[in-house]
Amino acid sequence: MIKGILFDLDDTLYNSSEFVEIARREAVKSMIDAGLNIDFEEAMNILNKIIKDKGSNYGKHFDDLVKAVLGRYDPKIITTGIITYHNVKFALLRPYPHTIKTLIELKAMGLKLGVITDGLTIKQWEKLIRLGIYPFFDDVITSEEFGLGKPHLEFFKYGLNRMGLKAEETIYVGDRIDKDIKPAKDLGMITVRILKGRYKDMEDDGYSDYTIKSLQELVDIVKELKNK
Amino acid sequence: MIKGILFDLDDTLYNSSEFVEIARREAVKSMIDAGLNIDFEEAMNILNKIIKDKGSNYGKHFDDLVKAVLGRYDPKIITTGIITYHNVKFALLRPYPHTIKTLIELKAMGLKLGVITDGLTIKQWEKLIRLGIYPFFDDVITSEEFGLGKPHLEFFKYGLNRMGLKAEETIYVGDRIDKDIKPAKDLGMITVRILKGRYKDMEDDGYSDYTIKSLQELVDIVKELKNK
Repeated sequence: MIKGILFDLDDTLYNSSEFVEIARREAVKSMIDAGLNIDFEEAMNILNKIIKDKGSNYGKHFDDLVKAVLGRYDPKIITTGIITYHNVKFALLRPYPHTIKTLIELKAMGLKLGVITDGLTIKQWEKLIRLGIYPFFDDVITSEEFGLGKPHLEFFKYGLNRMGLKAEETIYVGDRIDKDIKPAKDLGMITVRILKGRYKDMEDDGYSDYTIKSLQELVDIVKELKNK
Repeated sequence: MIKGILFDLDDTLYNSSEFVEIARREAVKSMIDAGLNIDFEEAMNILNKIIKDKGSNYGKHFDDLVKAVLGRYDPKIITTGIITYHNVKFALLRPYPHTIKTLIELKAMGLKLGVITDGLTIKQWEKLIRLGIYPFFDDVITSEEFGLGKPHLEFFKYGLNRMGLKAEETIYVGDRIDKDIKPAKDLGMITVRILKGRYKDMEDDGYSDYTIKSLQELVDIVKELKNK
């Protein structure tokens, strides 16, 4: 008997990969316009290396980029980049098509819905609030709160616990095989892989019970499982 | 011979007191709507006490408010407050009337213009960029960069140094007697007090060489001083 669904956030409920990439590129263009004297593609290479080395939640990507290019701190250029990044991010932040309609139907079916996501709590909540979808979720569980993230099984167990759900009565929806689908499957959840974002070509290895292209396919999956 | 002007930022070039107050009130209203179960005026009293105790650059005002009211951390309510605060802030952030016209005229008179301000470098730069006035300033000097703020004379000396100006050839424009006008006068600058913001009724004690109600009066003051 299916009682709830746990969703991954980034690239599962909205287009994270694409919007972050566009926001970064526009930010770098604005920094060049503000005096960062470097070729655009070269700047993107340096920035991407900084993000790879320091992680996406490191707060000083643009500081390090300016330091690498100019050899000094320049608050005007850094702040120009930050402002452009946020302006573009907020402009592009929208749920995938059919997301809200699907969430309405799933709630109407009496399911508990939760989000379980790697990342900083306030940043992940900001996305849910700006996406306009947070009222659908009974709980939002972040790796920052737990102190350990995906793919650690303890994090998924903690999430199930907070939701008051058992693994076997829970559907897990995510985009990544390694960090979402495999651990959820290992815990005994019913796994639904959504083919979105930059990992959509990753080898499946049989961990997904279902594979969907759009969130709205979930409604039929739940109906099918309810009839079992 | 007047060669340059140093400006304070908050409440001198734009209406800081008013816009921060409105943004905070709207943020608290949105937090109450998101589940902060408390009377609005009571919430404002708690928030104002937190701001007074921790300072305006403390990053966790809303966290502390939620903790004080609910006895727990609630990221949904905190993030709702942060988003509303920033949305309102950006919507209200505009220079005082006549500011841009005045800055154009002052640059046309061949003056060096600078900003010297207490606060975090990126936050103060963000205001100048969003206000659209940063290209007028040859330099922006913040207390975070120097490590010591107003009214320390060393900070003002450091600012003059960065601008390549001597005190006696520099006009200082600010709204506060204690933190702006007195130290500038003590260093030998020509002091212009602008009657704006929450300190406009503060006793002068003779530290201001000029008192203005609008920035545009500066143009005549510079003309008068140039003729001396």
